[in-house]
Amino acid sequence: MAFKEIGDQFAQFYYQTFDTNRAGLAPLYQADSMMTWEGTACQGQQAIIEKLSTLSFQSVAHNITRIDCQPGPDNSVLVMVIGQLKADQDAPLPFSQVFQLKSLNGNYYCYNDIFSLCLHNN
Amino acid sequence: MAFKEIGDQFAQFYYQTFDTNRAGLAPLYQADSMMTWEGTACQGQQAIIEKLSTLSFQSVAHNITRIDCQPGPDNSVLVMVIGQLKADQDAPLPFSQVFQLKSLNGNYYCYNDIFSLCLHNN
Repeated sequence: MAFKEIGDQFAQFYYQTFDTNRAGLAPLYQADSMMTWEGTACQGQQAIIEKLSTLSFQSVAHNITRIDCQPGPDNSVLVMVIGQLKADQDAPLPFSQVFQLKSLNGNYYCYNDIFSLCLHNN
Repeated sequence: MAFKEIGDQFAQFYYQTFDTNRAGLAPLYQADSMMTWEGTACQGQQAIIEKLSTLSFQSVAHNITRIDCQPGPDNSVLVMVIGQLKADQDAPLPFSQVFQLKSLNGNYYCYNDIFSLCLHNN
């Protein structure tokens, strides 16, 4: 499977799962996975899922605008996503997220994950 | 030098050079470098600098809001930047850009580069 299909499928699965069952994201991470969420860094499947599960919103919906993929170092796949996140009754907020997928036993897991809202002061 | 300093210094140098002398970005890329600019992909130092040099604006200024860094696979450094880009007399536009830096002979160059404006339809 080419890097673009790998990245696209991962992103589709990630956001669908995030929006319906955040704990279901656990299989996407391993012990060496890293996540930076709005500037807060955590490492490892358990810490990442705990962070995602305790985000303050109850209902959430991601609306993807664009997915760009490139092959990364060491057979990884780099994925950048631009979109909007609607949490609870709030107005949609623009976000950007980058994933780096690493191959493990024929499957891909998320080695790097950086999420940031695209909010600017001026 | 830790990954965060490497990523921060790279981003500062990249945007300062982009805003003053785009052709001066050439040393940051190698033959295997990839860039995706607003969905258009190109590969290699020469193609990347040609693309960057022929972007339609004359004057440009990047205003960085946030830089997040993580160590990537194979001793690379992953950098995600959120900011605003002001081109010519246009209003500032939000952008997101991800770089992946690879080590070569003790220096880092840009292996992956994905740039996207954060513009949404609704």
